[in-house]
Order: sequence, then C-alpha cells, then structure tokens
Amino acid sequence: MNVNCLEGSKHFHTVSFNSKENIVILINQKKLPHQFSLVETTDFYQTAAAIQDMTVRGAGAIGATAAFGFAQGCNSFKDNSLELFEKHWKKVFNTLAKARPTAVDPVNAMRNIIDKMKSGTSVESQQQIALEAAYQFAEDDIAHCVAIGQHGSPLIQDGMTLLTHCNAGWLAFVDIGSATAPIYTAHKEGKRFQVFCDETRPRSQGAILTAWELAQQGIPHRVISDNAAGHFMQRGQIQMVITGADRVLAKTGEAANKIGTFSKAVLAKYHNIPFYIAIPLSTIDWQTEKGADIPIEERDEDEVLCAWGAKEPSTSSKEYIPQKIRIANSSSHALNPGFDITPAELITGFITPFGIFSPKELGNKIKEFLSVK
Amino acid sequence: MNVNCLEGSKHFHTVSFNSKENIVILINQKKLPHQFSLVETTDFYQTAAAIQDMTVRGAGAIGATAAFGFAQGCNSFKDNSLELFEKHWKKVFNTLAKARPTAVDPVNAMRNIIDKMKSGTSVESQQQIALEAAYQFAEDDIAHCVAIGQHGSPLIQDGMTLLTHCNAGWLAFVDIGSATAPIYTAHKEGKRFQVFCDETRPRSQGAILTAWELAQQGIPHRVISDNAAGHFMQRGQIQMVITGADRVLAKTGEAANKIGTFSKAVLAKYHNIPFYIAIPLSTIDWQTEKGADIPIEERDEDEVLCAWGAKEPSTSSKEYIPQKIRIANSSSHALNPGFDITPAELITGFITPFGIFSPKELGNKIKEFLSVK
Repeated sequence: MNVNCLEGSKHFHTVSFNSKENIVILINQKKLPHQFSLVETTDFYQTAAAIQDMTVRGAGAIGATAAFGFAQGCNSFKDNSLELFEKHWKKVFNTLAKARPTAVDPVNAMRNIIDKMKSGTSVESQQQIALEAAYQFAEDDIAHCVAIGQHGSPLIQDGMTLLTHCNAGWLAFVDIGSATAPIYTAHKEGKRFQVFCDETRPRSQGAILTAWELAQQGIPHRVISDNAAGHFMQRGQIQMVITGADRVLAKTGEAANKIGTFSKAVLAKYHNIPFYIAIPLSTIDWQTEKGADIPIEERDEDEVLCAWGAKEPSTSSKEYIPQKIRIANSSSHALNPGFDITPAELITGFITPFGIFSPKELGNKIKEFLSVK
Repeated sequence: MNVNCLEGSKHFHTVSFNSKENIVILINQKKLPHQFSLVETTDFYQTAAAIQDMTVRGAGAIGATAAFGFAQGCNSFKDNSLELFEKHWKKVFNTLAKARPTAVDPVNAMRNIIDKMKSGTSVESQQQIALEAAYQFAEDDIAHCVAIGQHGSPLIQDGMTLLTHCNAGWLAFVDIGSATAPIYTAHKEGKRFQVFCDETRPRSQGAILTAWELAQQGIPHRVISDNAAGHFMQRGQIQMVITGADRVLAKTGEAANKIGTFSKAVLAKYHNIPFYIAIPLSTIDWQTEKGADIPIEERDEDEVLCAWGAKEPSTSSKEYIPQKIRIANSSSHALNPGFDITPAELITGFITPFGIFSPKELGNKIKEFLSVK
C-alpha cells in the first residue's frame, strides 16, 4: 500500500515499524526523486521482497528493515510451541537473509536478535525480545551515524570538493547516513564545500538519491557521470573520496560496496587522494576470511541495458510511474555484478562510530572499544 | 531529410558525398540502434550541425564529414574571385572546426585539403582539388583502418576477453573502425574471443553503437556498466583493452578520448593489463605541446541528468523518436566534460596503419614511414 506524503520528507525515518499493526513502513526509494511516498509491508515475505527489489536499499536501512521484518515474522507466529517457533523464525531469517546476499547488515542484525531471544523462555517472551532488539538495532544505527559524523567532520575543510559514490546517505540508513554523516555534520558547523555525486549506473543512486538528499539539505553538489571522476582528480578538482560499504572484513580490511567503488579507490590512489569508507558496526563481517569469498550479487541485465526515470518534471499531484527505456542495442546482453571488493591497500581509513581507523587496525580497535563499553 | 533503410546497413559507409547534388550523406547515429536511417545535409552549416549534435561522431567519421563539408562549402561558392573565395572557405573551415573542439581529425583533414588547394590557379580548379582531396581523405581513412586491423590482430588470442570504451568502430570512421579493426580482422581469421563494451555514459555509445556493430558482425559481446570494468579486471576476466582516440599528441604520447578512457587506463595499469589505442594518422596532433593544452569540450548537463532510448522494442516500420527521461533529482545540476587525457605512461602502445609503437617512439616512427612513403 502506498501513502503519498506530499511534503515534509525530512521528518520521516527511512525505515520504521508499527508493532501494533505488525507492519514495516519504508520510504519508497523506487519513486524517488520524482515522488516521496511510503510503502507498508504487512508480512515478512513482503518485507523481504521490498529489500530484494530495492524499495529499500543501503547497508543500515536494509539491516533495520531485516530486523523489523524478523520481529514482524516472529510476531505473526500464533502457537505456544517453542520448537515450532524456532522452525518458523529460521524460515523468516533465511527469507530475509537471501534477499541481498552481498550485504552483511541484515544477517548481523538478525543474528544479534536471535542471540538475545535465547534468554526468553516462552514464545511470547521471545517475540517481545525480538521486537525490542529490532527497535534497538534501529536506534543504534542512528547513534552510530551521528558518531560517524562527529569523527568524520574534521576531515572536511572549507573549499574542498568531495566525491561520493552511490548512496550512503540517510536513505541508506535509518537516518543521517554513513558517508553523508561527516558531510551533514560539517555543513551544520558552517563549513563551505561541495560534493560530486557519481551517477552510479546501473541504478543511478548517486544522481537519484544522493543528489536528492543533498538538495534537501541545501548542500552544493553536482552530478557527474561515473566516467568523469578520474578526469576531475587529474585536474586537481577532487580532494577527498568518502563512500559507504555493504560489508567490511575485520580480518583483512577489505570492503564490499556498490560496483564502481573499487575503480574510484584505484583512481584516488593513483592521484594520492585520501579515500575513506564510513561504516556503522553492523557493516563489519567478523567471520569471512577474504574478499574473494564474499558472494557478488549478479543482478538483472535489464538494469544495464535500460534506464528508468521521469517522462516530464514530476508533479506531486499524480502517482509517479518510472518510465523504462531501452538504451542498449536490442539484441545485446549485459553482465551486471552489483558490487565489487576494494582491497585494504587502497583505503586510507574507516570512519566508524568509535573513530577513524586504518584497515589494518580496524578489527582490533573496534574490539577494544566494544570490550571497554 | 531522412531516408529509412530497412536492411542492408552493412553496405553503407558511415559518411559519403554526392558531389553532383553537393550533399553529404551520413548514417544517422542518433537513431541507432533502434533504427537505421540516413541523413542528407545540403550545405556546410547543416554538415557542421550534424557534427555538433552527434548525428555523426567518432574521430575518422567527423574528419571525413568535415572534409566533405569543406568541399561542399567550396562548391557552393559562385564567383570567380580567388580573394572572395579564400574569405569564403575560411568561414567554412571555422564553422566546421568549432563543431567539436577536442577532436583533431576535422582540422587535420581540412588543413590537408587547403594545402593542396594552393596549387590551383582558379576558383574552379581549387574547388575541384578540394573535392578530390576530400575523397582521398575518406579513402585513406578506410585504408588506414584496414592496416590497423592487420597490425593489431596478432595481439588477439583465442579465449581472450577484450574491453573497449565508447565507439571506435566503423561508425566512428568511414568504414571498419580503429579499435574494432583488430577485432574484425581477428574475427575474420577465425579467432574466438569476446568483447566487453563499456556502456560509456553519458551518451552510452558503447551500449548503443559498439554493441550494435558487434551484433551485426556476429562477434560475442556483453555490455557492462562503466563501473564494472575494474571488478572484471580484478577477477582476471579482461586480458586487453583497446580504445580509439580523438587526438594523440606526437610530442608527448598523450591521448584525448571519450570521458572515462583515462580511468580505464589507470585500472589496466593497476592490474598489469595491456592498454592499446588504435589510431589512423589523421588523429595525430603534431603541434600541441602537452595534454593540458587540449581544450576539453564541456557538453550539455542534460546528457548526464537524463537518458535517451526506445520505449518499446524498435520496429523498422515506424520512425524511431528517442524517448528522453529524467534520471537525476530535478533540482540538481551536472558537470559534463566530454573527454579526458590519458598520459603516455598508461599506454602500452598505439596501433597505427604503420605498426604498433610506444607513446615515446610514435612521432618519430610515423615521420620515418611518411618520409619513406
């Protein structure tokens, strides 16, 4: 069900949950930037489908959506048998986990909930724990992004041009964003700088979502084609790169993120431009041994062969239906890997809720802070 | 005037000239891949406009179009005064030269014609010389591309995947193409390999034109987003890169080509993958001192913010009108440099009509061959 919200988009979280009605509420990112509207999913299958079809996307946002979807799935169970309940929530877990296989936030969020659920002795108490843990995930996500902003803002100086890839803004999280958190914080502090948004084909999240977010916040920005960043770096027109990540390996410091991130990191290295990745804790993968082991989602070739957008300037009075056009030669096919892996040697630092750490020290530093906490 | 050609596209040259009617005939590249049609320009202003709006594009193709447009402009002069004629052809030269400022082929082609015209002692004889020299340019362009194919084909081995950027195919020349010449030659020799076509935003010439050309020739290929090449290189799935160029500096070995070429060259270097640029002689700029002196055409921001394509699978029975959609946030602006400069250190070699030369030796080797010839 769509609820059109004609204004005040800033007052909504990207993801929220109505526990009374057991519905997850999402900003419909497939309608942006041409229309702001909400989608309500009424069961965990619908919630998984919204993750899969990118109604909601972005590391923290799909983490929170999976957390709420998991609580939603648990809540819909109507029996007292703990054994049957466990069977049920395992199905919920698997359904939500496989919606976006490269991302780690959904799995981390749900595993954390499952750990906590163990202390419950009845179905009802476990359902209640799952609900509270899901809300806690969303709150932590916001708190992490706020802290990322505080640690990252000092990197930004007056007169700089920053490059970002894809969208790691507040639309990619519950609020504030990861890569955008230092940007929003520095902007609030009165610093004057501009942002170049990579278009980020094939889904163009930079041109669509990041540009929309920055416009909402009044931050000077320009959209550039994915091909142009190297040229601007060569001409000395980009001073820093900040992106988010879908998964960062604690063991190696490698980062999986939207396809094209790796290319920008290679270009930044070639030009000696600092390349930062901003992440909350839920994006850290503590288990995986190396980047080559991360599954790379192969997405529908139509994303590369076609494009989607508005036929005319969008009007809020009517429902926005994205127009699909075929760009490529009609008999040609495409390959469409959704993500790539950036090796540690190309990453200047990870901006985390606890501070900025090199890829080498990331895992140990985060463990230290967590043990003190 | 459009002339729809429903089939047999392979039998047409990209550019040709009807000297009796004084019209230049172009394959309308703005209608490809969804419709094959010809455009006829009846004066040199129209011919310059067709270069400017990319009805015809590509180094050799706009060189030949400028050559024919120059002859066309000369032919339209109806007086016997050599003095007035010189004024006239200077206007023709300037009009055609400024249509695409980064490219060097149009200027080289026209300067060559002007040099030859000096031997004519009347307006009529100079007009005749211009006509013959323009035809000669087009014939040389084809001969150069054939020779590029012969020199470049041995680089291609069975089982390889080649990457190409933009379109340096037969649509970018009078026939055969530069970057595609080794590909077509190797294919004819029975080698089995595949080609990855970078989409090449913002105008998507790779997805539109190169993919269409390769499909016409039955060469296995896949379209990939501009963001994906780095990932495929990292996974060992690309063994060679071949592109064309709009201008190559004899003095430094730097190459100006479609935006994004430089990024692919940096990625190839990072992965130790050979990076070749295929060029006819008309693409060599003998004067300019360094790459930073090459004017980089800043194109309309709409190219980045929007996309063009077919609403439905194209049918040859009706006129194809490209559908324009707005991808980017409606209040955001874009920067759209059309070209970038690849430094010599990233270029393995130039595949030329005389052989394959390193950036360092290019100028001297070409001079040697020309002096022998």
